[in-house]
Amino acid sequence: MFVCQGFAASAADQPLKPFEFERRDVGEHDVRIEILYCGVCHSDLHQARNDWSNSLYPMVPGHEIVGRVAEVGAAVTKLKAGDYAGVGCLVDSCRRCAACEADLEQYCEEGPTPTYNGRERGKDALTFGGYSDQIVVEERFVVKVPETMDLKAVAPLLCAGITTYSPLRHWKVGPGSRVGVIGLGGLGHMGVKLAKAFGAHVTMITTSPGKGEDAMKLGADEVLISTDESAMGQAKASFDFLLNTVPVGHDLNPYAALLKLDGTMVLVGVLTPVEPLAGASLIMGRRSVAGSAIGGLAETQEMMDFCAEHGVLPDIEMIAMQDINEAYERLLKNDVRYRFVIDMATLKEAAVAN
Amino acid sequence: MFVCQGFAASAADQPLKPFEFERRDVGEHDVRIEILYCGVCHSDLHQARNDWSNSLYPMVPGHEIVGRVAEVGAAVTKLKAGDYAGVGCLVDSCRRCAACEADLEQYCEEGPTPTYNGRERGKDALTFGGYSDQIVVEERFVVKVPETMDLKAVAPLLCAGITTYSPLRHWKVGPGSRVGVIGLGGLGHMGVKLAKAFGAHVTMITTSPGKGEDAMKLGADEVLISTDESAMGQAKASFDFLLNTVPVGHDLNPYAALLKLDGTMVLVGVLTPVEPLAGASLIMGRRSVAGSAIGGLAETQEMMDFCAEHGVLPDIEMIAMQDINEAYERLLKNDVRYRFVIDMATLKEAAVAN
Repeated sequence: MFVCQGFAASAADQPLKPFEFERRDVGEHDVRIEILYCGVCHSDLHQARNDWSNSLYPMVPGHEIVGRVAEVGAAVTKLKAGDYAGVGCLVDSCRRCAACEADLEQYCEEGPTPTYNGRERGKDALTFGGYSDQIVVEERFVVKVPETMDLKAVAPLLCAGITTYSPLRHWKVGPGSRVGVIGLGGLGHMGVKLAKAFGAHVTMITTSPGKGEDAMKLGADEVLISTDESAMGQAKASFDFLLNTVPVGHDLNPYAALLKLDGTMVLVGVLTPVEPLAGASLIMGRRSVAGSAIGGLAETQEMMDFCAEHGVLPDIEMIAMQDINEAYERLLKNDVRYRFVIDMATLKEAAVAN
Repeated sequence: MFVCQGFAASAADQPLKPFEFERRDVGEHDVRIEILYCGVCHSDLHQARNDWSNSLYPMVPGHEIVGRVAEVGAAVTKLKAGDYAGVGCLVDSCRRCAACEADLEQYCEEGPTPTYNGRERGKDALTFGGYSDQIVVEERFVVKVPETMDLKAVAPLLCAGITTYSPLRHWKVGPGSRVGVIGLGGLGHMGVKLAKAFGAHVTMITTSPGKGEDAMKLGADEVLISTDESAMGQAKASFDFLLNTVPVGHDLNPYAALLKLDGTMVLVGVLTPVEPLAGASLIMGRRSVAGSAIGGLAETQEMMDFCAEHGVLPDIEMIAMQDINEAYERLLKNDVRYRFVIDMATLKEAAVAN
């Protein structure tokens, strides 16, 4: 075991504060990463504040981790000291079930081990995330980051990137696809960029004309304002695929009506109940509503390499570690375009300041 | 025009009574069928009583029609006088849209013409259904019924049969598939028989142990009682495909949990809103909820030929025309195993008796 520095929540109603904790020594298959940047996912806030009633404290949030490999175990082949590496939402899984064998560790039948707010596999020890100086993760759960990439912007790819990449790939979005991205936040803005990179015709569907303008700057081809009944009526049955990134319960029926015959709407942002869906919204047009969770490790690597090749990166706002509590307040007001990233070089001064 | 005899509802609160009306003469592409049997679909009752607020009166219900071809137009090639023929839920569509061109007339972009409770394409004249002695339908919308089939049991294939056949085919149910059929009524019992005929392992999922026993007699391999929390827990993530035939709003979440990774639940019975679905029910397992409506005419013919070849027919209870109002009351109490079929030979005496 060795000592790490980080920022942690000690209870649902407490701000994050400096926190010292231990991580395991580097095992045969492990990689130790010096964390350079960590993205701030909306779910960090939900979990730090126990919004989902499953929080384990103390909690070091952060699952959009990027850094430099400092040390590798004897059996590690994919990475070496000095490489850039990323860690996303998962740090372990059972490795034996059908999902794991299909490289879909996120759907591990025994449940994958989350990067934070979980327990190390088969142990009582809590997992601690990326709001920290270092992390030790088994090679299988580490992504290699091409050296050509802008590291600080890479961090959000590990969650927001793969969460939108995976369903666009699974449902075969490509040239000729008419795609609608519902909601413009951390996920939505990556959805627009990735769907464009796949060659699709992309419409941002938002309640806010201002966000529509922003989406055009991000590369969207069109904007559809969902509160404009006439525009929604004209857009009926015109989309092959809808990526729904809205993070709260809402009425799916007006969006389902936008789908063509055999079209699919995929939920990636909302875990809680949506409003009652009318059977007819799906039956009339053989439409589907599906869900998708992040991606497996092989696909996360594929996504990283795709983003490097096509120059796809999120728009970020850098913050210092000591600004995290203020950043959470701004997140609650959707006041971020489109992802906060913590510069982990500020961790030491934050520890002193607090 | 020529005069036909039938049974019609004259208003939402009126019983069905004898009714005389006119049908068009046989055109170049038309087929005139002497109706021998007509199935009683639950939607007949909904529409006769204006439950969906879209009823047009007078209404002659009936879209599970089977009979003998009496006359064909000069351009008809598929059928000749003396053949057995069937008519389902549709009698026309635009023929030009992408759906029609893909033989999916049920999803016609301009809306297909329903067999009853609609208007003839481009005209004011109402369409009248199969609770009658004859019908004239364009060849494209007529299915040829193999002579070897038990005609009276064929009738429900035209709606209950194709409604369950089409999604089982579309989602590629076959040997090795683990299929759950939710709800045992007219649709559910056909779902069990067809999924078995496709080679799947079939579980009847029902609230009622009695219906479970019935399902075993119909060929189901297993029964899962949906009110048994322990059994539902053990069955989690064990189905590739769920055919949900429940005709009223209900909670989909416990059923979604039964789906394996990438599994699909298809709604075929419920047009109205279902209870709020949790996003997590779909996201955790990349599950889908979809809808499916009847089938196109080519697929309806394929279904008919498949049922002839594999000896798949519904369990029916024959009724006389004058018993239709009583049959509706029994339908409301689910007191039918599993489909009423009207013997149209009783129409004349019913007209006299009323």
